[in-house]
Amino acid sequence: MQQFPTAIANLIRELGKLPGIGSKTAQRLAFHILSLNEQEVSALAESIITAKKSTTLCSVCCNLTEIDPCPICSSAKRDHSMICIVEEPRDVAAMERMNEYNGLYHVLHGAISPIDNIGPEDIKLRELLIRLQQHNEVEEIVLATNPTVNGEATAVYLSRLLKPSGIKISRIASGLPMGGDLEYADEITLARAFEGRQEL
Amino acid sequence: MQQFPTAIANLIRELGKLPGIGSKTAQRLAFHILSLNEQEVSALAESIITAKKSTTLCSVCCNLTEIDPCPICSSAKRDHSMICIVEEPRDVAAMERMNEYNGLYHVLHGAISPIDNIGPEDIKLRELLIRLQQHNEVEEIVLATNPTVNGEATAVYLSRLLKPSGIKISRIASGLPMGGDLEYADEITLARAFEGRQEL
Repeated sequence: MQQFPTAIANLIRELGKLPGIGSKTAQRLAFHILSLNEQEVSALAESIITAKKSTTLCSVCCNLTEIDPCPICSSAKRDHSMICIVEEPRDVAAMERMNEYNGLYHVLHGAISPIDNIGPEDIKLRELLIRLQQHNEVEEIVLATNPTVNGEATAVYLSRLLKPSGIKISRIASGLPMGGDLEYADEITLARAFEGRQEL
Repeated sequence: MQQFPTAIANLIRELGKLPGIGSKTAQRLAFHILSLNEQEVSALAESIITAKKSTTLCSVCCNLTEIDPCPICSSAKRDHSMICIVEEPRDVAAMERMNEYNGLYHVLHGAISPIDNIGPEDIKLRELLIRLQQHNEVEEIVLATNPTVNGEATAVYLSRLLKPSGIKISRIASGLPMGGDLEYADEITLARAFEGRQEL
Protein backbone atom coordinates (compact mmCIF):
# COMPACT_ATOMS: atom_id res chain seq x y z
CA MET A 1 0.00 0.00 0.00
CA GLN A 2 1.39 3.36 -1.04
CA GLN A 3 1.84 5.62 1.94
CA PHE A 4 0.68 8.91 0.40
CA PRO A 5 -1.37 9.76 -2.68
CA THR A 6 0.97 10.68 -5.57
CA ALA A 7 0.27 14.41 -5.48
CA ILE A 8 0.94 14.59 -1.74
CA ALA A 9 4.10 12.48 -2.03
CA ASN A 10 5.25 14.85 -4.77
CA LEU A 11 4.57 17.92 -2.62
CA ILE A 12 6.47 16.35 0.29
CA ARG A 13 9.40 15.61 -2.02
CA GLU A 14 9.48 19.17 -3.38
CA LEU A 15 9.30 20.70 0.10
CA GLY A 16 12.00 18.30 1.30
CA LYS A 17 14.40 19.79 -1.24
CA LEU A 18 14.38 23.12 0.60
CA PRO A 19 17.36 23.74 2.89
CA GLY A 20 16.86 22.66 6.50
CA ILE A 21 13.58 20.89 5.71
CA GLY A 22 13.85 17.18 6.52
CA SER A 23 11.28 14.58 5.57
CA LYS A 24 9.30 14.94 8.82
CA THR A 25 9.07 18.72 8.48
CA ALA A 26 8.20 18.38 4.78
CA GLN A 27 5.31 16.09 5.76
CA ARG A 28 4.11 18.51 8.41
CA LEU A 29 4.27 21.43 5.96
CA ALA A 30 2.50 19.44 3.24
CA PHE A 31 -0.41 18.51 5.49
CA HIS A 32 -0.59 22.08 6.70
CA ILE A 33 -0.75 23.35 3.12
CA LEU A 34 -3.50 20.84 2.31
CA SER A 35 -5.49 22.10 5.30
CA LEU A 36 -5.49 25.65 3.92
CA ASN A 37 -8.28 26.88 1.66
CA GLU A 38 -7.80 27.19 -2.13
CA GLN A 39 -7.17 30.92 -1.91
CA GLU A 40 -4.41 30.61 0.67
CA VAL A 41 -2.77 27.83 -1.32
CA SER A 42 -2.81 29.94 -4.49
CA ALA A 43 -1.37 32.91 -2.61
CA LEU A 44 1.55 30.76 -1.47
CA ALA A 45 2.20 29.21 -4.89
CA GLU A 46 1.86 32.55 -6.66
CA SER A 47 4.20 34.31 -4.27
CA ILE A 48 6.84 31.74 -5.24
CA ILE A 49 6.31 32.18 -8.98
CA THR A 50 6.00 35.96 -8.78
CA ALA A 51 9.10 36.40 -6.64
CA LYS A 52 11.12 34.39 -9.12
CA LYS A 53 9.66 36.05 -12.22
CA SER A 54 9.79 39.65 -11.07
CA THR A 55 13.32 39.64 -9.72
CA THR A 56 16.53 39.77 -11.69
CA LEU A 57 20.09 40.56 -10.79
CA CYS A 58 21.00 44.24 -10.75
CA SER A 59 23.31 44.87 -13.72
CA VAL A 60 25.56 46.95 -11.48
CA CYS A 61 25.84 45.17 -8.13
CA CYS A 62 24.32 41.73 -8.93
CA ASN A 63 21.91 41.95 -6.00
CA LEU A 64 18.35 40.62 -6.47
CA THR A 65 16.06 43.42 -7.59
CA GLU A 66 12.74 44.19 -9.23
CA ILE A 67 14.08 47.25 -11.08
CA ASP A 68 17.43 47.49 -12.80
CA PRO A 69 19.63 49.12 -11.62
CA CYS A 70 18.51 48.34 -8.09
CA PRO A 71 17.26 51.08 -5.71
CA ILE A 72 20.58 51.11 -3.85
CA CYS A 73 22.74 51.49 -6.97
CA SER A 74 20.49 54.19 -8.41
CA SER A 75 20.11 56.15 -5.18
CA ALA A 76 21.79 59.56 -5.11
CA LYS A 77 21.69 59.45 -1.32
CA ARG A 78 24.11 56.52 -1.12
CA ASP A 79 27.85 56.98 -0.99
CA HIS A 80 29.05 55.84 -4.39
CA SER A 81 32.70 55.91 -3.36
CA MET A 82 32.34 52.80 -1.21
CA ILE A 83 31.53 49.23 -2.22
CA CYS A 84 30.85 46.47 0.28
CA ILE A 85 31.46 43.02 -1.19
CA VAL A 86 29.25 40.22 0.13
CA GLU A 87 28.63 36.61 -0.83
CA GLU A 88 24.85 36.47 -1.07
CA PRO A 89 21.79 38.73 -1.47
CA ARG A 90 20.76 37.87 2.09
CA ASP A 91 24.02 39.39 3.29
CA VAL A 92 22.96 42.72 1.75
CA ALA A 93 19.73 42.43 3.75
CA ALA A 94 21.76 41.80 6.92
CA MET A 95 24.00 44.81 6.26
CA GLU A 96 20.99 47.03 5.55
CA ARG A 97 19.34 45.94 8.80
CA MET A 98 22.42 47.27 10.60
CA ASN A 99 21.42 50.74 9.35
CA GLU A 100 24.95 52.09 9.54
CA TYR A 101 26.32 51.57 6.08
CA ASN A 102 25.44 54.01 3.34
CA GLY A 103 27.65 52.87 0.48
CA LEU A 104 26.98 50.47 -2.39
CA TYR A 105 27.25 46.68 -2.57
CA HIS A 106 28.54 44.00 -4.82
CA VAL A 107 27.09 40.50 -4.50
CA LEU A 108 29.45 37.70 -5.53
CA HIS A 109 26.80 34.93 -5.42
CA GLY A 110 29.19 32.54 -3.78
CA ALA A 111 32.74 32.32 -2.55
CA ILE A 112 35.85 30.74 -3.98
CA SER A 113 35.95 27.11 -2.88
CA PRO A 114 38.57 24.89 -4.55
CA ILE A 115 37.15 21.82 -2.79
CA ASP A 116 33.77 22.37 -4.48
CA ASN A 117 35.42 23.34 -7.75
CA ILE A 118 34.24 26.94 -7.46
CA GLY A 119 36.91 29.24 -8.83
CA PRO A 120 37.08 33.02 -9.31
CA GLU A 121 35.33 32.68 -12.67
CA ASP A 122 32.28 31.06 -11.03
CA ILE A 123 31.38 34.06 -8.88
CA LYS A 124 30.42 37.60 -9.96
CA LEU A 125 34.01 38.78 -10.00
CA ARG A 126 34.28 39.79 -13.64
CA GLU A 127 31.24 42.00 -13.10
CA LEU A 128 33.07 43.69 -10.23
CA LEU A 129 36.20 44.35 -12.28
CA ILE A 130 34.18 45.80 -15.18
CA ARG A 131 32.24 47.92 -12.69
CA LEU A 132 35.45 49.29 -11.17
CA GLN A 133 36.74 50.19 -14.63
CA GLN A 134 33.54 52.04 -15.47
CA HIS A 135 33.08 53.82 -12.15
CA ASN A 136 36.34 55.40 -11.11
CA GLU A 137 34.78 57.24 -8.15
CA VAL A 138 35.23 54.13 -5.93
CA GLU A 139 37.64 54.90 -3.07
CA GLU A 140 37.13 52.03 -0.66
CA ILE A 141 36.14 48.40 -0.96
CA VAL A 142 35.02 46.59 2.19
CA LEU A 143 35.39 42.83 1.98
CA ALA A 144 32.42 41.44 3.90
CA THR A 145 32.56 37.82 2.78
CA ASN A 146 31.83 35.39 5.61
CA PRO A 147 34.55 34.62 8.18
CA THR A 148 34.65 31.00 6.96
CA VAL A 149 37.42 29.14 5.14
CA ASN A 150 35.89 29.96 1.75
CA GLY A 151 34.94 33.52 2.64
CA GLU A 152 38.43 34.21 3.98
CA ALA A 153 40.05 32.71 0.90
CA THR A 154 37.84 34.86 -1.30
CA ALA A 155 38.73 37.98 0.70
CA VAL A 156 42.45 37.25 0.43
CA TYR A 157 42.12 36.58 -3.30
CA LEU A 158 40.17 39.80 -3.84
CA SER A 159 42.53 41.93 -1.78
CA ARG A 160 45.51 40.71 -3.82
CA LEU A 161 43.62 41.22 -7.06
CA LEU A 162 42.44 44.73 -6.21
CA LYS A 163 45.51 46.05 -4.40
CA PRO A 164 47.26 47.29 -7.59
CA SER A 165 44.24 49.48 -8.41
CA GLY A 166 45.16 51.79 -5.55
CA ILE A 167 41.66 51.55 -4.04
CA LYS A 168 41.62 51.22 -0.26
CA ILE A 169 40.73 47.63 0.65
CA SER A 170 39.41 46.69 4.10
CA ARG A 171 38.05 43.55 5.73
CA ILE A 172 35.26 43.42 8.32
CA ALA A 173 36.54 42.50 11.80
CA SER A 174 36.41 39.01 13.27
CA GLY A 175 36.23 38.51 17.00
CA LEU A 176 33.92 37.65 19.86
CA PRO A 177 30.27 38.34 19.12
CA MET A 178 28.70 41.03 21.33
CA GLY A 179 27.10 39.44 24.38
CA GLY A 180 29.33 36.42 23.83
CA ASP A 181 31.33 34.69 26.50
CA LEU A 182 35.11 34.27 26.46
CA GLU A 183 34.76 30.89 28.13
CA TYR A 184 32.61 29.49 25.35
CA ALA A 185 34.40 31.05 22.38
CA ASP A 186 36.20 28.65 20.06
CA GLU A 187 39.98 28.99 19.84
CA ILE A 188 40.07 30.42 16.34
CA THR A 189 37.57 33.16 17.13
CA LEU A 190 39.43 33.98 20.33
CA ALA A 191 42.77 34.07 18.50
CA ARG A 192 41.26 36.44 15.95
CA ALA A 193 39.81 38.66 18.65
CA PHE A 194 43.22 38.80 20.33
CA GLU A 195 45.04 39.51 17.08
CA GLY A 196 42.60 42.24 16.18
CA ARG A 197 42.82 43.97 19.57
CA GLN A 198 42.65 47.73 19.42
CA GLU A 199 44.18 50.34 21.66
CA LEU A 200 41.71 52.26 23.79
CA MET B 1 14.93 52.22 2.27
CA GLN B 2 12.77 49.16 1.94
CA GLN B 3 14.61 46.06 3.05
CA PHE B 4 13.42 43.66 0.35
CA PRO B 5 11.83 44.12 -3.08
CA THR B 6 8.03 43.74 -2.80
CA ALA B 7 7.86 40.33 -4.46
CA ILE B 8 10.57 38.93 -2.18
CA ALA B 9 8.96 40.47 0.91
CA ASN B 10 5.69 38.88 -0.15
CA LEU B 11 7.33 35.46 -0.59
CA ILE B 12 8.95 35.74 2.83
CA ARG B 13 5.60 36.64 4.38
CA GLU B 14 3.85 33.70 2.72
CA LEU B 15 6.54 31.23 3.77
CA GLY B 16 6.48 32.69 7.30
CA LYS B 17 2.84 31.64 7.62
CA LEU B 18 3.82 27.96 7.50
CA PRO B 19 4.01 26.18 10.85
CA GLY B 20 7.43 26.20 12.49
CA ILE B 21 8.85 28.64 9.93
CA GLY B 22 9.99 31.83 11.64
CA SER B 23 11.02 35.00 9.85
CA LYS B 24 14.71 34.02 9.65
CA THR B 25 13.91 30.62 8.17
CA ALA B 26 11.40 32.19 5.79
CA GLN B 27 14.14 34.53 4.54
CA ARG B 28 16.56 31.67 4.10
CA LEU B 29 13.97 29.62 2.20
CA ALA B 30 13.00 32.61 0.03
CA PHE B 31 16.59 33.30 -1.01
CA HIS B 32 17.09 29.61 -1.66
CA ILE B 33 14.00 29.52 -3.88
CA LEU B 34 15.24 32.59 -5.79
CA SER B 35 18.55 30.85 -6.38
CA LEU B 36 16.81 27.92 -8.10
CA ASN B 37 16.25 27.92 -11.86
CA GLU B 38 12.81 28.69 -13.36
CA GLN B 39 12.05 25.02 -13.86
CA GLU B 40 12.73 24.05 -10.25
CA VAL B 41 10.68 26.99 -9.01
CA SER B 42 7.71 25.96 -11.19
CA ALA B 43 8.00 22.38 -9.98
CA LEU B 44 7.74 23.57 -6.39
CA ALA B 45 4.82 25.93 -7.02
CA GLU B 46 2.99 23.39 -9.15
CA SER B 47 3.40 20.61 -6.60
CA ILE B 48 1.60 22.88 -4.12
CA ILE B 49 -1.28 23.70 -6.47
CA THR B 50 -1.59 20.12 -7.75
CA ALA B 51 -1.56 18.55 -4.30
CA LYS B 52 -4.35 20.86 -3.21
CA LYS B 53 -6.40 20.49 -6.42
CA SER B 54 -6.12 16.75 -6.82
CA THR B 55 -6.89 15.74 -3.25
CA THR B 56 -10.28 15.68 -1.59
CA LEU B 57 -11.59 14.06 1.55
CA CYS B 58 -12.66 10.46 1.22
CA SER B 59 -16.45 10.37 1.52
CA VAL B 60 -16.18 7.36 3.82
CA CYS B 61 -13.24 7.96 6.18
CA CYS B 62 -12.51 11.70 5.58
CA ASN B 63 -8.82 11.01 4.91
CA LEU B 64 -7.08 12.98 2.15
CA THR B 65 -7.25 11.08 -1.12
CA GLU B 66 -6.96 11.42 -4.87
CA ILE B 67 -9.70 8.91 -5.57
CA ASP B 68 -12.98 8.64 -3.69
CA PRO B 69 -13.47 6.37 -1.80
CA CYS B 70 -9.81 6.22 -0.82
CA PRO B 71 -7.64 3.14 -1.56
CA ILE B 72 -7.90 1.97 2.07
CA CYS B 73 -11.70 2.21 2.25
CA SER B 74 -12.14 0.49 -1.11
CA SER B 75 -9.61 -2.26 -0.48
CA ALA B 76 -11.02 -5.76 -0.08
CA LYS B 77 -7.80 -6.78 1.69
CA ARG B 78 -8.45 -4.50 4.66
CA ASP B 79 -10.44 -5.62 7.67
CA HIS B 80 -13.73 -3.70 7.39
CA SER B 81 -14.83 -4.70 10.87
CA MET B 82 -12.34 -2.38 12.53
CA ILE B 83 -12.12 1.42 12.46
CA CYS B 84 -9.23 3.35 13.93
CA ILE B 85 -10.16 6.94 14.76
CA VAL B 86 -7.40 9.54 14.42
CA GLU B 87 -7.26 13.31 14.55
CA GLU B 88 -5.40 14.18 11.34
CA PRO B 89 -4.49 12.67 7.93
CA ARG B 90 -0.84 12.60 9.03
CA ASP B 91 -1.85 10.24 11.84
CA VAL B 92 -3.12 7.76 9.23
CA ALA B 93 0.31 7.98 7.59
CA ALA B 94 1.94 7.26 10.97
CA MET B 95 -0.32 4.25 11.59
CA GLU B 96 0.34 2.90 8.10
CA ARG B 97 4.10 3.21 8.62
CA MET B 98 3.70 0.89 11.61
CA ASN B 99 2.62 -1.81 9.16
CA GLU B 100 0.64 -3.74 11.75
CA TYR B 101 -2.87 -2.43 11.39
CA ASN B 102 -5.08 -3.74 8.64
CA GLY B 103 -8.42 -2.15 9.45
CA LEU B 104 -10.02 1.06 8.26
CA TYR B 105 -9.66 4.63 9.52
CA HIS B 106 -11.77 7.62 10.34
CA VAL B 107 -10.13 11.05 10.34
CA LEU B 108 -11.76 13.59 12.65
CA HIS B 109 -9.79 16.60 11.36
CA GLY B 110 -9.29 17.92 14.83
CA ALA B 111 -10.16 17.17 18.42
CA ILE B 112 -12.74 18.56 20.78
CA SER B 113 -11.29 21.60 22.49
CA PRO B 114 -13.69 23.74 24.51
CA ILE B 115 -10.96 26.33 25.11
CA ASP B 116 -10.62 26.90 21.35
CA ASN B 117 -14.36 26.72 20.85
CA ILE B 118 -14.10 23.43 18.94
CA GLY B 119 -17.06 21.24 19.79
CA PRO B 120 -18.21 17.81 18.56
CA GLU B 121 -19.98 19.47 15.60
CA ASP B 122 -16.70 21.01 14.37
CA ILE B 123 -14.96 17.70 13.74
CA LYS B 124 -15.94 14.87 11.37
CA LEU B 125 -18.13 13.17 13.95
CA ARG B 126 -21.45 13.30 12.14
CA GLU B 127 -19.72 11.56 9.22
CA LEU B 128 -18.62 8.78 11.60
CA LEU B 129 -22.12 8.27 13.01
CA ILE B 130 -23.68 8.12 9.52
CA ARG B 131 -20.95 5.71 8.49
CA LEU B 132 -21.65 3.41 11.43
CA GLN B 133 -25.36 3.40 10.59
CA GLN B 134 -24.65 2.47 6.99
CA HIS B 135 -21.97 -0.15 7.65
CA ASN B 136 -23.11 -2.52 10.36
CA GLU B 137 -20.15 -4.85 9.90
CA VAL B 138 -18.04 -2.71 12.28
CA GLU B 139 -17.07 -4.68 15.41
CA GLU B 140 -14.32 -2.64 16.99
CA ILE B 141 -13.43 1.03 17.13
CA VAL B 142 -9.90 1.95 18.25
CA LEU B 143 -9.64 5.48 19.59
CA ALA B 144 -6.21 6.70 18.47
CA THR B 145 -6.59 10.40 19.13
CA ASN B 146 -3.44 11.96 20.62
CA PRO B 147 -2.67 11.43 24.32
CA THR B 148 -3.11 15.18 24.92
CA VAL B 149 -5.77 17.01 26.89
CA ASN B 150 -7.90 17.53 23.76
CA GLY B 151 -7.25 14.08 22.33
CA GLU B 152 -8.14 12.44 25.65
CA ALA B 153 -11.31 14.51 25.98
CA THR B 154 -12.30 13.53 22.46
CA ALA B 155 -11.65 9.85 23.21
CA VAL B 156 -13.77 9.99 26.37
CA TYR B 157 -16.55 11.81 24.52
CA LEU B 158 -16.50 9.29 21.69
CA SER B 159 -16.43 6.26 23.97
CA ARG B 160 -19.53 7.52 25.83
CA LEU B 161 -21.26 8.35 22.57
CA LEU B 162 -20.52 5.00 20.95
CA LYS B 163 -20.92 2.69 23.97
CA PRO B 164 -24.70 2.21 23.50
CA SER B 165 -24.13 0.90 19.95
CA GLY B 166 -22.65 -2.29 21.39
CA ILE B 167 -19.49 -1.92 19.28
CA LYS B 168 -16.28 -2.75 21.15
CA ILE B 169 -14.44 0.49 21.92
CA SER B 170 -10.72 0.54 22.75
CA ARG B 171 -8.10 3.21 23.35
CA ILE B 172 -4.42 3.01 22.32
CA ALA B 173 -2.11 2.59 25.31
CA SER B 174 -0.22 5.42 26.95
CA GLY B 175 3.05 4.78 28.73
CA LEU B 176 6.78 5.11 28.42
CA PRO B 177 8.04 5.34 24.84
CA MET B 178 10.23 2.40 23.78
CA GLY B 179 13.87 3.21 24.39
CA GLY B 180 12.75 5.83 26.89
CA ASP B 181 14.16 6.25 30.35
CA LEU B 182 12.17 6.02 33.60
CA GLU B 183 14.33 8.70 35.11
CA TYR B 184 13.44 11.25 32.47
CA ALA B 185 9.76 10.40 32.07
CA ASP B 186 7.28 13.06 33.19
CA GLU B 187 5.00 12.17 36.10
CA ILE B 188 1.83 11.89 34.06
CA THR B 189 3.35 9.50 31.54
CA LEU B 190 4.86 7.43 34.33
CA ALA B 191 1.53 7.33 36.18
CA ARG B 192 -0.16 6.18 32.98
CA ALA B 193 2.46 3.51 32.40
CA PHE B 194 1.98 2.26 35.97
CA GLU B 195 -1.81 2.31 35.75
CA GLY B 196 -1.70 0.43 32.45
CA ARG B 197 0.67 -2.30 33.75
CA GLN B 198 -0.04 -5.73 32.38
CA GLU B 199 0.52 -9.12 33.92
CA LEU B 200 3.29 -11.14 32.28
